[in-house]
Amino acid sequence: MIVRTTLALCAALALLTSNSAMAQPSKNRVVRIAELEIDPAQLDAYKAFLAEEIEASVRLEPGVLSLSAVSIKGSPTRIRILEIYADQAGYEAHLLTPHFLKYKNGTASMVKSLTLLETDPIKLCTKADCG
Amino acid sequence: MIVRTTLALCAALALLTSNSAMAQPSKNRVVRIAELEIDPAQLDAYKAFLAEEIEASVRLEPGVLSLSAVSIKGSPTRIRILEIYADQAGYEAHLLTPHFLKYKNGTASMVKSLTLLETDPIKLCTKADCG
Repeated sequence: MIVRTTLALCAALALLTSNSAMAQPSKNRVVRIAELEIDPAQLDAYKAFLAEEIEASVRLEPGVLSLSAVSIKGSPTRIRILEIYADQAGYEAHLLTPHFLKYKNGTASMVKSLTLLETDPIKLCTKADCG
Repeated sequence: MIVRTTLALCAALALLTSNSAMAQPSKNRVVRIAELEIDPAQLDAYKAFLAEEIEASVRLEPGVLSLSAVSIKGSPTRIRILEIYADQAGYEAHLLTPHFLKYKNGTASMVKSLTLLETDPIKLCTKADCG
């Protein structure tokens, strides 16, 4: 009986926990697309900086909900990053963090071009969230 | 004592649950970017189809990890969708689902252009996952 109650409680708590990180109203979210062209000679170094910055941002910052970086297949120096912040304050706080500044300064000579697209979210769903 | 044990168990299970959905090795993931231009006269109807399809796909399909749809700010008919599938099989299964076919057929006359970009993932992190 205790086991069953425990399992039921766990299921409920697990559901709550798995949704809590991205449960903010989606209307407040800030979603941006970054389109970058990287110096081919420095691509590996750039990707190392980027991966470290993404991992730290999502792990450490409450306001950074998701960062997804890909390169266009066949064009490895063409990078796209989808950035999802809880709100404008979360985005602005991100710009001041040591890990972001390390990335920004460390990659300044590697980035040949950067286009930032602001967006209006339509629907953002992951296994942990749908809002 | 039971309460504390329950809470400890819950914390462990919650952690497992919140990570399990996207815990596949990232090397298998299929990530695509869709870039669409929508008929302005049908934009609201298109967005309703899209939101319904995204919600159902992420909720019902184990192989659909994340779908993020946005429009470019100031250009509401320019839509971008970042699609993250667990693997190729997850992507192919998605194409055969009733909710995807409803979206695809229902919006055929609304989509003025569609560009699908295949990508190579560099780093994909959300609050529920980092791999």
